[in-house]
Amino acid sequence: LRQGMPEVIFGEGKDAGQIVQIMTAMHATGSNILVTRLSPEKGAEIGTHFPAARYHDEARCLTLAQRPPEMRGRGTILVVSAGTSDIGVAAEALVTARFLGNEAEPLYDVGVSGIHRLLARREMLCSASVIIVVAGMEGALPSVVGGLVDRPVIAVPTSVGYGASFGGIAALLGMLNSCAAGVTVVNIDNGFGAACAASLINRV
Amino acid sequence: LRQGMPEVIFGEGKDAGQIVQIMTAMHATGSNILVTRLSPEKGAEIGTHFPAARYHDEARCLTLAQRPPEMRGRGTILVVSAGTSDIGVAAEALVTARFLGNEAEPLYDVGVSGIHRLLARREMLCSASVIIVVAGMEGALPSVVGGLVDRPVIAVPTSVGYGASFGGIAALLGMLNSCAAGVTVVNIDNGFGAACAASLINRV
Amino acid sequence: LRQGMPEVIFGEGKDAGQIVQIMTAMHATGSNILVTRLSPEKGAEIGTHFPAARYHDEARCLTLAQRPPEMRGRGTILVVSAGTSDIGVAAEALVTARFLGNEAEPLYDVGVSGIHRLLARREMLCSASVIIVVAGMEGALPSVVGGLVDRPVIAVPTSVGYGASFGGIAALLGMLNSCAAGVTVVNIDNGFGAACAASLINRV
Amino acid sequence: LRQGMPEVIFGEGKDAGQIVQIMTAMHATGSNILVTRLSPEKGAEIGTHFPAARYHDEARCLTLAQRPPEMRGRGTILVVSAGTSDIGVAAEALVTARFLGNEAEPLYDVGVSGIHRLLARREMLCSASVIIVVAGMEGALPSVVGGLVDRPVIAVPTSVGYGASFGGIAALLGMLNSCAAGVTVVNIDNGFGAACAASLINRV
Amino acid sequence: LRQGMPEVIFGEGKDAGQIVQIMTAMHATGSNILVTRLSPEKGAEIGTHFPAARYHDEARCLTLAQRPPEMRGRGTILVVSAGTSDIGVAAEALVTARFLGNEAEPLYDVGVSGIHRLLARREMLCSASVIIVVAGMEGALPSVVGGLVDRPVIAVPTSVGYGASFGGIAALLGMLNSCAAGVTVVNIDNGFGAACAASLINRV
Amino acid sequence: LRQGMPEVIFGEGKDAGQIVQIMTAMHATGSNILVTRLSPEKGAEIGTHFPAARYHDEARCLTLAQRPPEMRGRGTILVVSAGTSDIGVAAEALVTARFLGNEAEPLYDVGVSGIHRLLARREMLCSASVIIVVAGMEGALPSVVGGLVDRPVIAVPTSVGYGASFGGIAALLGMLNSCAAGVTVVNIDNGFGAACAASLINRV
Amino acid sequence: LRQGMPEVIFGEGKDAGQIVQIMTAMHATGSNILVTRLSPEKGAEIGTHFPAARYHDEARCLTLAQRPPEMRGRGTILVVSAGTSDIGVAAEALVTARFLGNEAEPLYDVGVSGIHRLLARREMLCSASVIIVVAGMEGALPSVVGGLVDRPVIAVPTSVGYGASFGGIAALLGMLNSCAAGVTVVNIDNGFGAACAASLINRV
Amino acid sequence: LRQGMPEVIFGEGKDAGQIVQIMTAMHATGSNILVTRLSPEKGAEIGTHFPAARYHDEARCLTLAQRPPEMRGRGTILVVSAGTSDIGVAAEALVTARFLGNEAEPLYDVGVSGIHRLLARREMLCSASVIIVVAGMEGALPSVVGGLVDRPVIAVPTSVGYGASFGGIAALLGMLNSCAAGVTVVNIDNGFGAACAASLINRV
Ligand SMILES: Nc1ncnc2c1ncn2[C@@H]1O[C@H](COP(=O)(O)O)[C@@H](O)[C@H]1O
Ligand SMILES: Nc1ncnc2c1ncn2[C@@H]1O[C@H](COP(=O)(O)O)[C@@H](O)[C@H]1O
Ligand SMILES: Nc1ncnc2c1ncn2[C@@H]1O[C@H](COP(=O)(O)O)[C@@H](O)[C@H]1O
Ligand SMILES: Nc1ncnc2c1ncn2[C@@H]1O[C@H](COP(=O)(O)O)[C@@H](O)[C@H]1O
Ligand SMILES: [Mg+2]
Ligand SMILES: [Mg+2]
Ligand SMILES: [Mg+2]
Ligand SMILES: [Mg+2]
Ligand SMILES: [Mg+2]
Ligand SMILES: [Mg+2]
Ligand SMILES: [Mg+2]
Ligand SMILES: [Mg+2]
Repeated sequence: LRQGMPEVIFGEGKDAGQIVQIMTAMHATGSNILVTRLSPEKGAEIGTHFPAARYHDEARCLTLAQRPPEMRGRGTILVVSAGTSDIGVAAEALVTARFLGNEAEPLYDVGVSGIHRLLARREMLCSASVIIVVAGMEGALPSVVGGLVDRPVIAVPTSVGYGASFGGIAALLGMLNSCAAGVTVVNIDNGFGAACAASLINRV
Repeated sequence: LRQGMPEVIFGEGKDAGQIVQIMTAMHATGSNILVTRLSPEKGAEIGTHFPAARYHDEARCLTLAQRPPEMRGRGTILVVSAGTSDIGVAAEALVTARFLGNEAEPLYDVGVSGIHRLLARREMLCSASVIIVVAGMEGALPSVVGGLVDRPVIAVPTSVGYGASFGGIAALLGMLNSCAAGVTVVNIDNGFGAACAASLINRV
Repeated sequence: LRQGMPEVIFGEGKDAGQIVQIMTAMHATGSNILVTRLSPEKGAEIGTHFPAARYHDEARCLTLAQRPPEMRGRGTILVVSAGTSDIGVAAEALVTARFLGNEAEPLYDVGVSGIHRLLARREMLCSASVIIVVAGMEGALPSVVGGLVDRPVIAVPTSVGYGASFGGIAALLGMLNSCAAGVTVVNIDNGFGAACAASLINRV
Repeated sequence: LRQGMPEVIFGEGKDAGQIVQIMTAMHATGSNILVTRLSPEKGAEIGTHFPAARYHDEARCLTLAQRPPEMRGRGTILVVSAGTSDIGVAAEALVTARFLGNEAEPLYDVGVSGIHRLLARREMLCSASVIIVVAGMEGALPSVVGGLVDRPVIAVPTSVGYGASFGGIAALLGMLNSCAAGVTVVNIDNGFGAACAASLINRV
Repeated sequence: LRQGMPEVIFGEGKDAGQIVQIMTAMHATGSNILVTRLSPEKGAEIGTHFPAARYHDEARCLTLAQRPPEMRGRGTILVVSAGTSDIGVAAEALVTARFLGNEAEPLYDVGVSGIHRLLARREMLCSASVIIVVAGMEGALPSVVGGLVDRPVIAVPTSVGYGASFGGIAALLGMLNSCAAGVTVVNIDNGFGAACAASLINRV
Repeated sequence: LRQGMPEVIFGEGKDAGQIVQIMTAMHATGSNILVTRLSPEKGAEIGTHFPAARYHDEARCLTLAQRPPEMRGRGTILVVSAGTSDIGVAAEALVTARFLGNEAEPLYDVGVSGIHRLLARREMLCSASVIIVVAGMEGALPSVVGGLVDRPVIAVPTSVGYGASFGGIAALLGMLNSCAAGVTVVNIDNGFGAACAASLINRV
Repeated sequence: LRQGMPEVIFGEGKDAGQIVQIMTAMHATGSNILVTRLSPEKGAEIGTHFPAARYHDEARCLTLAQRPPEMRGRGTILVVSAGTSDIGVAAEALVTARFLGNEAEPLYDVGVSGIHRLLARREMLCSASVIIVVAGMEGALPSVVGGLVDRPVIAVPTSVGYGASFGGIAALLGMLNSCAAGVTVVNIDNGFGAACAASLINRV
Repeated sequence: LRQGMPEVIFGEGKDAGQIVQIMTAMHATGSNILVTRLSPEKGAEIGTHFPAARYHDEARCLTLAQRPPEMRGRGTILVVSAGTSDIGVAAEALVTARFLGNEAEPLYDVGVSGIHRLLARREMLCSASVIIVVAGMEGALPSVVGGLVDRPVIAVPTSVGYGASFGGIAALLGMLNSCAAGVTVVNIDNGFGAACAASLINRV
């Protein structure tokens, strides 16, 4: 990552050999390294070259830390998600946020059709400094969260759904039209980008 | 209206003279009459020919009842809406539901970004037999309502919004992807159609 | 399913092992269980763990009933479909409706380009309490059915077709624009959701 | 019109003066002339220059015939339409078909949600040589007509409707996906083009 | 096929066993049979059951004729196509047209970017009774052909292309907007449907 | 505005009388008031009732401050824009940011096709705490700005442009696909929402 | 215009007073000035301030030349267009090309449905150095021209058309999918941009 | 390729045998041959028949030159690209440009979120005669390049990206809306077509 952050590799479309080669060069400079969008198979293969690397199953990410990340954020980044199938994207955000030197916590399975599970965690919501909200299908969760708290909310639409979800378009449009103030949006499935933005916000 | 219901005229694109002519013929047969999508100006002009007609400002509808509608519904149809600008469509649904012989009540201004206003009316929600939920922008309200109650929910997207709301498409897609069971959807701004369906449901 | 209904598992994207694990927990509480969007292979594998389970080929669903469903509906839910290729979605609706405690019957192969086959079954249509209409391609069937009967019609667009059917969009739009009163719509291929709504309607 | 047909002027976007000028040149060559998409105001103004011209209100067309059109078609072109608001487009097709030298008859107000009105006219349908079917909203009528008869059907989607009709897209897609054999489609609101095609077909 | 034509089976999504079963029933009634959208593998397997069946490679169709088709068309149906990759759809149209009892001829590889190859065949174009024009990418060929001849033109967009061809949408829109009179359009890749329409036209 | 912020009225679609009525009630409680999307004419009419109100021409907003806003932000919010026609949306963001108690500064006319004007202001960019970037047409500016600074960037697409800008969709998509980390996006023309988010970020 | 070209003002959305003010400043520096997208009314008003200015009716442009443009192009830019309604955009290209110091000639009314008019001008096509092709509706003309000549072709889709032309999208897609080599495309109705590109090409 | 250029084969959708057959015929006439969109596997197989052929890995192209291409261009065609994943399309353009007889050079990895890498190569940009700019995601690079130089820029959107990049639509729209003069656009991933246009421009 440019802009003073540690190094990140977009794993999709690169084979394990290519990634190992890039990692070797980065490693030599002492950087911590994050590889996103990585299948378990490629993760395992890379692990044979970098035994210190850690593969994160849910997030489909790999991290290789040569030293603990410098913790620079003001508060905790909370990663909220709705359905089971949104957890992959949420976990990508969580791993990235921590990799970038932030306290970060998950709050999963609090979708809008069972609103009391969300309301029961209101205290946790209110004590976060930034909130990432991950949701597919109708993408309604960021509006509800944004209405409950007085914090920046970064909404991540996911491609979860079928039919008229159109690979995440329904959720994306829902989030762009959020009636709650303070909600901004990133690309479909972009848990990584949401965490980058949250990390910058967390050290404003 | 075919199917045993009273007569309905779609007012848009017809001038007052044409509507008066159609109404005169219908009136002769003893029918109750509803005119939807009618401007106040045309409503006033029609009123000079049918002094017994009543114009409904919010709903932009006119009703002319020769006898009280036969009340055939099992319970109350509740019409829920989110923002101020959705009230026009909600009112069209309300007027239509009553015209078709149902008890019907409004519950307005209970959008998802201020969820407590909705939760405060939970009892009202639970005592309805059918619920029509009208919402624009992100169209999230039907999912929340559907999660709170065990009743059929008819979702009506509205064309309220700007930019990426695309004249109601965002709300429509949100509703079609609702994660709450029991939610069905009608066309954008179709308060009338929602009330027709609710009325049929109310006498199953 | 929340809201007092028996338990339902969305099978797509979960492997047989995961589903068995979830079913085991649910089974322990005495619930009847429905698994939707399940391939025959996974169905067979699950069957080795739950011999009492029944796999429904056309519907690609599995049901596991510990006790007969409580029959609570007022009348019969009729599931109407147009072409051979729509039968999968129709069957999902049929299995779900019965699982949720309703009388439910199929009426297949009555598409609009051979209108007399539909008209020949008019009596069956009129004796239903709710009608689910499943159709792909031009999605015209719900309008015709809605015009013939005085009952709530739930339209289910299917992704059947090619070219300008756009994976069900053509059928979806056709249904949203239905000129028959009382037609509401669910997401593309959502036979399950249509049956949930029909079930709630059937006990209003 | 090229290809041996009489002269046609597309009136939209041209003022009365421009049209009179073009007509004057055409008239000098002895051609019969058709002007489509013409407002009543412009029609009246043109009428002061060409007293023999006839303005067709419903069709918003003007015809100026110096001699009776040569009747060359084999049979009758039938123009079928669904709703009141589709009549303008249907009438454009009717006027054009006659102008091009064909017997042509209207069959209006036979929409699919009241299927018996259509079935009652089956004999008229079967005696036509070519059928133009004009419909907005869900655009289902051509499929039903195509299933009833063994004749070429030209489907004309109209921009009538609101919300998810998207200015005629819903009807267009419905027609392109028609499950009846022998249905072909023209552009939205293109009654003129349908009549040109029907006229060529009528003299194959 | 309903409407008095011989029997047709849509092969896509059916396995060879299912098709053989349907064919066996149809064959017993003496019908000629056409199977469209059939892979060579399934074609070969069916051939082992019906040695008299003929598989058409380019068209990916199979025909089984118990007696020669009744030749009822007035003239020749010409099937014109632009690029090499459009030939599959063109061949489907050609095989269908002949199966339905028409004289039919191909005219391939006459795309608009080499206009002289098309102009060189003008005589062939003018002697046809109906012309089917198959084209992908920009879909311009039907306009040029329609301008050259005074015959009904049925345009078939193909899904050939990449990027902004959007699976045939570019060609479809181009054809719907054709500036030549007498052009009508069928669904993307629907060579079969074009031939059905052409066949009906050929016996008007 | 809920969430502890001063009061805001969305002026579009409300007439001056309605706005005055709402303002009167708010004013009585001592709130500062912002009215957005307000024409100069309505602004002037409101000014006759609230002489202390100030109309902001470029921003088409009106503010009525009973006391200076509590300045709570950590640093300066910078509002960057590309073309002349984006200034309206940028100004809405600027006025809102100040109204919500932030230092805020404009940096206009620094579009990507004249990149040196932007680079010349690098110091200003780097000293901001949050940056709002407003751009229409290709929406490329946020990527360039995001690459230059290590701060949160909120991108606002505008509806400026014609043809394939599709009322801001091109800019919106460009921004959602930004290759610079830390960029989040709001709805088309939503300068107000961008400033709300920036204000929350500025006090994390 | 940056990049060493004379000054250009985009007239749309600016009133005559604003334009006069900008022109006055530009004029003082000795620049030649082009104002595009200017109504005749605004053109007349500007003419009272700059009597030397010339308004181009078809092009809706105004030019003010203090000295003859430096003629720097290698050859002639030919501007080809299809229908009458495309002439406005073609004329904008023509005026701009000349203003930028190029020989430029029109070739209008040579659409693809009357291909012989185009073929008759083949010599003119072949003697151009760059060809701008302006077309609406199906946008087929650039492919035909590109196939006839061995020169760069810049295609300009226009918003002319109705229904499925979608304001120029059909033409735009057609042009992007052109099967002729050497065709590049600009935004819908962007005659100005096509001429800028042609001018740069003409002096490569 | 028509128009006097050497022969080109579009490899996608053709198997190695078919390509060898076409190449054999072309080779006999003495032509140089380019095969685009060719997998390494097919490239290797073809290589066994034509040992003189060269396969270009990045570009996925094969060239077979019987004699050196006639160098006819005036200057150098520069191929600029943004991200790693755009290199395939850029290389297709590079190989094609050289095959067509032009000097051509690459300038890769100069995306807009690290603008200084691009600015550092300004001299190289300014010394080109034509510039092809290849970019995915937000497609902003052509605008920046077009603003820096006074040369024709051909923009090639790539299908690189995910979510709201919609397979290259975001980049395509960004490029069509470029605010820099002199930018024209080709189809998504069409490196070949960009090079054909650049080659024609290079010999104007
Ligand atoms: N999951 C992700 N989603 C979006 N962008 C990513 C992701 N992972 C990495 N990136 C970006 O991709 C860049 C690396 O791309 P590459 O050079 O192709 O490995 C990083 O600097 C990040 O900005
Ligand atoms: N607001 C409305 N939205 C949708 N459909 C309506 C509406 N009002 C009336 N209709 C339908 O329009 C029909 C009457 O149309 P018309 O004959 O044009 O007056 C009625 O039978 C209703 O089915
Ligand atoms: N290639 C094709 N494209 C479109 N429709 C077809 C095609 N082949 C057959 N059909 C239609 O599909 C019907 C048979 O469908 P099925 O019962 O599924 O075999 C026939 O009656 C035809 O109307
Ligand atoms: N008709 C036009 N279409 C597209 N861009 C134009 C047009 N006319 C002028 N422009 C561009 O707009 C810029 C001036 O915009 P403005 O500063 O708003 O007057 C010029 O430098 C041109 O690049
Ligand atoms: Mg909030
Ligand atoms: Mg519920
Ligand atoms: Mg009904
Ligand atoms: Mg038929
Ligand atoms: Mg013709
Ligand atoms: Mg940055
Ligand atoms: Mg050429
Ligand atoms: Mg430039």
